[in-house]
Amino acid sequence: MSGTLYGVGVGPGDPDLITMKAAKLISNAKVIAYPAPDSGVSFARSIVAEHIANDAQEIPMIVPMRVDRFPAQTVYDREAEVIAGHLASGEDVIVLCEGDPFFFGSFMYLYNRLADRFKSDIVPGVSSLTACASRLKHPLAARNDVLSVIPGPASDEEFKARLSMGGSFAIIKVGRHFSRIRALLEQHGLLERAGYVERATLEAEKVMPLKDVTDDCAPYFSMILIYDGEEPWS
Amino acid sequence: MSGTLYGVGVGPGDPDLITMKAAKLISNAKVIAYPAPDSGVSFARSIVAEHIANDAQEIPMIVPMRVDRFPAQTVYDREAEVIAGHLASGEDVIVLCEGDPFFFGSFMYLYNRLADRFKSDIVPGVSSLTACASRLKHPLAARNDVLSVIPGPASDEEFKARLSMGGSFAIIKVGRHFSRIRALLEQHGLLERAGYVERATLEAEKVMPLKDVTDDCAPYFSMILIYDGEEPWS
Repeated sequence: MSGTLYGVGVGPGDPDLITMKAAKLISNAKVIAYPAPDSGVSFARSIVAEHIANDAQEIPMIVPMRVDRFPAQTVYDREAEVIAGHLASGEDVIVLCEGDPFFFGSFMYLYNRLADRFKSDIVPGVSSLTACASRLKHPLAARNDVLSVIPGPASDEEFKARLSMGGSFAIIKVGRHFSRIRALLEQHGLLERAGYVERATLEAEKVMPLKDVTDDCAPYFSMILIYDGEEPWS
Repeated sequence: MSGTLYGVGVGPGDPDLITMKAAKLISNAKVIAYPAPDSGVSFARSIVAEHIANDAQEIPMIVPMRVDRFPAQTVYDREAEVIAGHLASGEDVIVLCEGDPFFFGSFMYLYNRLADRFKSDIVPGVSSLTACASRLKHPLAARNDVLSVIPGPASDEEFKARLSMGGSFAIIKVGRHFSRIRALLEQHGLLERAGYVERATLEAEKVMPLKDVTDDCAPYFSMILIYDGEEPWS
């Protein structure tokens, strides 16, 4: 009897925003894997650290934080086989995922390598999308609005086409694309309506109107939200 | 000292998919409000029933379930004033929200009526969006895909324009628009890639390829997901 691969969303960062199901699975876990940087602590692990048993076996998956070379396929090839070894021996493996496992996350790279060989279960989490909206205190979208979620690396042409169609927008993975995106939003008359959130629900969180952001770049964990409602964001 | 208005997301339906924060707030709540149908139980309340204290004061907000007349502004006018009375007297009020408070929910109708007069805090929840993806076992979107969230009542023209642009799609509030939407997806060559989820994470859940759905209509709590990945949904 092989074990089960669990992809467990741990939410945006506030340890209280993990689900009851995630807390139970993590507390009982014998084997836990999570993405980790070259040096320093794993963000996903830090969110749920209090729930991890002392004798749990931990598998940090070291993914170099160079955005352009992501995903590091060789890392996932290797880590998938480590995890496969545990699953084949009958152990369940809990994989921690920042936010939600299937919302623009890296879990899919593991999942694609293991799901046809082993049982799996996906535990959804609070995504950065709804976490950022809660911090801006503004709906993401409502009624019959279309909500477009656009990753920051999208081309100017893609942005222009999407922004021209109207609706509500969430621009994720802003990072080094910040200045370009701000200029595009200004061209489309959307700067006044745009809200900016950085590191939502964490201590270092920043929440402000986009037009008040003075830096020329943003961290990877930042988001711009534009709500197509009656009132601009305030 | 006035009380605080809490908008608390209770997730898609599985009681284990509420957050630790929601569980704590609801367990300690003295006053709890939630949407409720004309007759029968409140879905939002049913998700968290085990956490509600016996002596909590409950405010069911009866919203007639006729989609075309939604939102029932007079209901929200009246309930907002009931809640305002509690807040003004110094009591916190917990408002339960299916899924997430700011993802296409009705909480915004209360929030708009109260947020300028009282302190508020929004507790994000697991949205139907990520819950449905977890049940289909397929990413919502990945890498630099654009994800478009389209409400079922959108016009044919809106659907055609959005579907032509490509990317990943989540079609929510499918309900009585089911047949029309399926035909539109077929016209755009997307039927084979589409997954269907109804009542995600509940006992009555249905999960299947869209092409295998034989009914001509769908419940309000249903969603169609189309993932712009390498493989069609399977």
